[in-house]
Amino acid sequence: MAEVNPAFVLHSIQNVSFEDRPVVPLKDAHDVRVHVQQTGICGSDVHYWQRGRIGDFILESPIVLGHESAGVVVEAGSNVTNVKVGDRVAIEPGVPCRRCDFCRAGAYNLCADTVFAATPPHDGTLQKYYAVASDYVYPIPAHMTAEDGALVEPVAVAVQIVRVGDVRAGQSVLVFGCGPIGVLCQAVAKASGASKVIGVDISDSRAQFARDFAADGVYVSKTKPEEGVDAVDAARSLGERIVAEFGLGLGADVVLECTGAEQCIQAGIFAAKKGGTYVQAGMGKENVVFPITTACIRALTVKGSIRYSTGCYPEAIRLIASGKIQPSKLITHRFKFEQAEEAFELVRQGQENTLKVIIEGVQK
Amino acid sequence: MAEVNPAFVLHSIQNVSFEDRPVVPLKDAHDVRVHVQQTGICGSDVHYWQRGRIGDFILESPIVLGHESAGVVVEAGSNVTNVKVGDRVAIEPGVPCRRCDFCRAGAYNLCADTVFAATPPHDGTLQKYYAVASDYVYPIPAHMTAEDGALVEPVAVAVQIVRVGDVRAGQSVLVFGCGPIGVLCQAVAKASGASKVIGVDISDSRAQFARDFAADGVYVSKTKPEEGVDAVDAARSLGERIVAEFGLGLGADVVLECTGAEQCIQAGIFAAKKGGTYVQAGMGKENVVFPITTACIRALTVKGSIRYSTGCYPEAIRLIASGKIQPSKLITHRFKFEQAEEAFELVRQGQENTLKVIIEGVQK
Amino acid sequence: MAEVNPAFVLHSIQNVSFEDRPVVPLKDAHDVRVHVQQTGICGSDVHYWQRGRIGDFILESPIVLGHESAGVVVEAGSNVTNVKVGDRVAIEPGVPCRRCDFCRAGAYNLCADTVFAATPPHDGTLQKYYAVASDYVYPIPAHMTAEDGALVEPVAVAVQIVRVGDVRAGQSVLVFGCGPIGVLCQAVAKASGASKVIGVDISDSRAQFARDFAADGVYVSKTKPEEGVDAVDAARSLGERIVAEFGLGLGADVVLECTGAEQCIQAGIFAAKKGGTYVQAGMGKENVVFPITTACIRALTVKGSIRYSTGCYPEAIRLIASGKIQPSKLITHRFKFEQAEEAFELVRQGQENTLKVIIEGVQK
Amino acid sequence: MAEVNPAFVLHSIQNVSFEDRPVVPLKDAHDVRVHVQQTGICGSDVHYWQRGRIGDFILESPIVLGHESAGVVVEAGSNVTNVKVGDRVAIEPGVPCRRCDFCRAGAYNLCADTVFAATPPHDGTLQKYYAVASDYVYPIPAHMTAEDGALVEPVAVAVQIVRVGDVRAGQSVLVFGCGPIGVLCQAVAKASGASKVIGVDISDSRAQFARDFAADGVYVSKTKPEEGVDAVDAARSLGERIVAEFGLGLGADVVLECTGAEQCIQAGIFAAKKGGTYVQAGMGKENVVFPITTACIRALTVKGSIRYSTGCYPEAIRLIASGKIQPSKLITHRFKFEQAEEAFELVRQGQENTLKVIIEGVQK
Repeated sequence: MAEVNPAFVLHSIQNVSFEDRPVVPLKDAHDVRVHVQQTGICGSDVHYWQRGRIGDFILESPIVLGHESAGVVVEAGSNVTNVKVGDRVAIEPGVPCRRCDFCRAGAYNLCADTVFAATPPHDGTLQKYYAVASDYVYPIPAHMTAEDGALVEPVAVAVQIVRVGDVRAGQSVLVFGCGPIGVLCQAVAKASGASKVIGVDISDSRAQFARDFAADGVYVSKTKPEEGVDAVDAARSLGERIVAEFGLGLGADVVLECTGAEQCIQAGIFAAKKGGTYVQAGMGKENVVFPITTACIRALTVKGSIRYSTGCYPEAIRLIASGKIQPSKLITHRFKFEQAEEAFELVRQGQENTLKVIIEGVQK
Repeated sequence: MAEVNPAFVLHSIQNVSFEDRPVVPLKDAHDVRVHVQQTGICGSDVHYWQRGRIGDFILESPIVLGHESAGVVVEAGSNVTNVKVGDRVAIEPGVPCRRCDFCRAGAYNLCADTVFAATPPHDGTLQKYYAVASDYVYPIPAHMTAEDGALVEPVAVAVQIVRVGDVRAGQSVLVFGCGPIGVLCQAVAKASGASKVIGVDISDSRAQFARDFAADGVYVSKTKPEEGVDAVDAARSLGERIVAEFGLGLGADVVLECTGAEQCIQAGIFAAKKGGTYVQAGMGKENVVFPITTACIRALTVKGSIRYSTGCYPEAIRLIASGKIQPSKLITHRFKFEQAEEAFELVRQGQENTLKVIIEGVQK
Repeated sequence: MAEVNPAFVLHSIQNVSFEDRPVVPLKDAHDVRVHVQQTGICGSDVHYWQRGRIGDFILESPIVLGHESAGVVVEAGSNVTNVKVGDRVAIEPGVPCRRCDFCRAGAYNLCADTVFAATPPHDGTLQKYYAVASDYVYPIPAHMTAEDGALVEPVAVAVQIVRVGDVRAGQSVLVFGCGPIGVLCQAVAKASGASKVIGVDISDSRAQFARDFAADGVYVSKTKPEEGVDAVDAARSLGERIVAEFGLGLGADVVLECTGAEQCIQAGIFAAKKGGTYVQAGMGKENVVFPITTACIRALTVKGSIRYSTGCYPEAIRLIASGKIQPSKLITHRFKFEQAEEAFELVRQGQENTLKVIIEGVQK
Repeated sequence: MAEVNPAFVLHSIQNVSFEDRPVVPLKDAHDVRVHVQQTGICGSDVHYWQRGRIGDFILESPIVLGHESAGVVVEAGSNVTNVKVGDRVAIEPGVPCRRCDFCRAGAYNLCADTVFAATPPHDGTLQKYYAVASDYVYPIPAHMTAEDGALVEPVAVAVQIVRVGDVRAGQSVLVFGCGPIGVLCQAVAKASGASKVIGVDISDSRAQFARDFAADGVYVSKTKPEEGVDAVDAARSLGERIVAEFGLGLGADVVLECTGAEQCIQAGIFAAKKGGTYVQAGMGKENVVFPITTACIRALTVKGSIRYSTGCYPEAIRLIASGKIQPSKLITHRFKFEQAEEAFELVRQGQENTLKVIIEGVQK
């Protein structure tokens, strides 16, 4: 191929451009090349654009942005068996080293050498063609759209969070946040047989969306802590009010925290049942004031969820293909490839009515 | 029995006295009466004495103090089968309701209706006779002393902490604190096949005791964070120094936090391996600044440990009886029953060279 | 109460009669007395009637039969808090000792001292009044019928089997047997988010019922192994045919064996995916020819399921009350209390079109 | 390298020869070439020699034999970082595909595409040089001999069996078989903190070896079932006698079956405690008469163990290096490379006093 490969490239903080990248040969006989059709935008993409770093990942040379994508296989290495040219696939954006102890033990989300799309120094998927290991692309059925395919990524994130929370049939699940990941967690928890799934958000419109999407109920928390009230005490009250209002008895069996907001983290600990599970999935401040004694006395299990594990993508595709989860309802804005910067700007603004923004790939 | 039952009673904050309590008939045919021979003193006993409350447990009427005891069965109800009059036993101080969902599910340490010795409003064991459900007393072999029997309690606490941490053979275990619970956790972890057990303390003498007792190494942390250094950054450095100094590679497989000190909690999170387990067992400030993003990104499992579960007492007795753990080495001071207040005062002072203080029961 | 308490009593093998039993005072302040309204008949009831024993449980003196019941609380001991007189409740038929290690560890289904209704020497529920510990009765909502309440028992059995199988959202589940327990397992597995639930039976009519009830598909196995074909080879073929026909890929994630038939046990092992889970719930021959090498090489987890554990009854009630499972569809025959022997005879015959037989309690 | 590479080759059943194989370039930049120093012989090696197949693995073209080896790295690909030329290493004989769901989920022992030494059609390690992926070789410390290094393999097998059995500190463990794998399981269980480890064998001398090696006790079972006694009844008696003789109370917490003998399998089920774990590790007859009802009623967990998982090799090396396990005590016979057939013949004879046979590699 001597074809042109247009790409949306982040050069430095707030400095993006379109450029033509070469189409290089596949590096491994197990790789495939995918013609990207749709790409969702995620907060982390915007974070690199605005700040140039997330934690230890620092932009030091230009990278192509984007990591939530679906497309069509246009080339397959000689050892590829799971897909063939012409297959429509969702792309899992991180390919681990396969050799470290984390990979060998099945915790590939912890591999330090993962090649993750749009995480410096690795290029992302906002280009016409993206090459990736074939076991990290997953066929999607004909009745799933390419938009659905791109949204497999956030659904897979939610599948992982719910797995980390070890949600079982019959359990009550409290989800902080009604943004894309929050509402998808609510939907995945329902699909896992949860008896009652309650969302929490500060926005009425997001709350209403969550109720319509999957939640059995949503608590809208608008009040600021009163003057003179200790912040943790206020959070404890918030947690207890949620438990009382939605009849969660001794507390939620599982709490999934998808905001990263300090007050939500605190309220979530107080809203968890003794012996229950709390999952930290949202990311905000590095450090927060945390009710450690309550976590200890209640014998809680507090776990972090990061990325995906084996089976998350297939399960996400199954949930979408079966109609149990309809992530396209999350899409509030659609852009052409050439409008990518405009799309990023919209996500950056973070308005209440912006849920999921998606960018169509280069077509021709 | 119309016998006299001398008891060491806490009436109100810092107000204790000796008094004769009646010997009432056993309430249940499954109960036994134990003549208490030795009782260890624990920080929580002192806390009630000094403050009159721990969390929601508030002293509102006088209680007998003490909860770490061993003695001799002097009376057994008609349904008792596991022990008989004359048996020497260790007493597990909390008898749960047996009927709530926590009890029925095996998490009796979370039962809200537990009758726990010396936790208001329940009387403790610093009296001549203590009546308790027979399945919460455990025979000790002839070669174990009554002191050993009293120290089954802290060993059982350590067994539970190590269980909560799910310590497996071959794992590295980092234990913050070289007080009684810390060093016992170190010993239990070693007995569970841990490959490397490292303690942390601020006291040279406690560190030396820990090395002699069970630890493979101890880190003595004396330095205060420098001026202008962020406390969490300092804790991160501390955690990383410990990992480096003791060759813990990517971090400890399991961290057991037995101090409750904010800096230790923070350092413990930074010292844990990705995917590792951190157990909060120590209790200090209600709320601490906590590196939640690190816990999340590293996919840690943070768990609280409280009290004991089924099998902890038998396992603690086995470890002592077999000589694998010698808790009597922890005893630094011994008192007669009449000197109980003096014993409490010594524990209150919390001097570096005071590890375990034990009070002999009423003899005649 | 000096009231009359009619009871359906098994005196010896095949020898039953109705008799009036006294109404004795409640033995414990935590007990309740229930006026039994409906009672389902189960194979084990019939087994005692016909054979006088199951395993080590041998009929040596008369017992009242019946153990799947619901009714109305007519008397509550002074310590009862979870229900009150007039409440409609489902009765869990086995009350464990609460004191052995199994009970204390949460495995009360393994308690050797359980008082289990209609298991010698304990009386069952086919009497007007049944007294039981209050934490083993569970309120049912007004919109659930007493028949639904009686059928909570087999639903709870299925909940336990699915729990033992650790069925997770997205897994494929293969259930041998489309009798009452089999179809309920299929329904509970679906409610747990199983991706594909396949039943197996030899009866076309039961297969059709299962498809209508909950299963995604049912394999009807009618063929006898051919002459000269090794029975295990035939079972392997059967297992492999089921896997192929229903697209189970490398095998079912979870196999639930609810028949106890030797061929099903064997086929189930061969139909399980490497690393998968197989649950033995059905009981037939004491010993069977078992493909142990396949179980070993495939690293299967083979588990036995027996009775219920904490939370099974509440979860069963939730599934019924929410309409997710409608066990009343299983009822093929209804009898008055006076017709109890007729009901037992019908179950004994085990005809294809007899699923669940239920006996109305003494009304007045 | 144009060097000579002598190899011990199995051509067809009972037909072996020595031949010079070429030394081909490393296939992958992550590979290393090891100069093999010592190789232990295992029953499976002999099985291929005598029968030409194990299960679905059938000898269809010549293979080099041997798979328990240690040696010195003589060449390392450009991407190798964990070892360097000159390092002494133990070789894990199976390298999985790294791409299937089993591999990605951490269950690489179940990978169908594993390249396993001396399993048709893959060559084994009884050659001068063996090339293998670098993450499947593990450095051994200077004080471990090459013989110790070769015996890491059976120790790793035992580590996996004990892991599958989920042996915890304080548990009782019953091990059927006092051959190499049996006694190593006994030793690994002790190193995991098991309270009591009991072996079972038919040989007095093996029993004595086991007692000296690690077991707390060994039951020698010599009696044949009496005429007219049902075989399963006899096995039940055997199991119950073992439990009684060694004070295992309600049964062993964990049973590790390392013989594959039908009577041992049966006895093992009867000797397991209710709720306990039974691991099938030994392989004998494909199918056995199995007390399935007992397994069900006792709610046992029966698991198969096969090969190793991540961490088994490092843990085995740690146990040997620390002196906790001394596998060289198992070596009863040593041979030169040229005597390989003689070594195989000795293992084939399976005499009571033959435990481990080891073959020195080509030296020059």
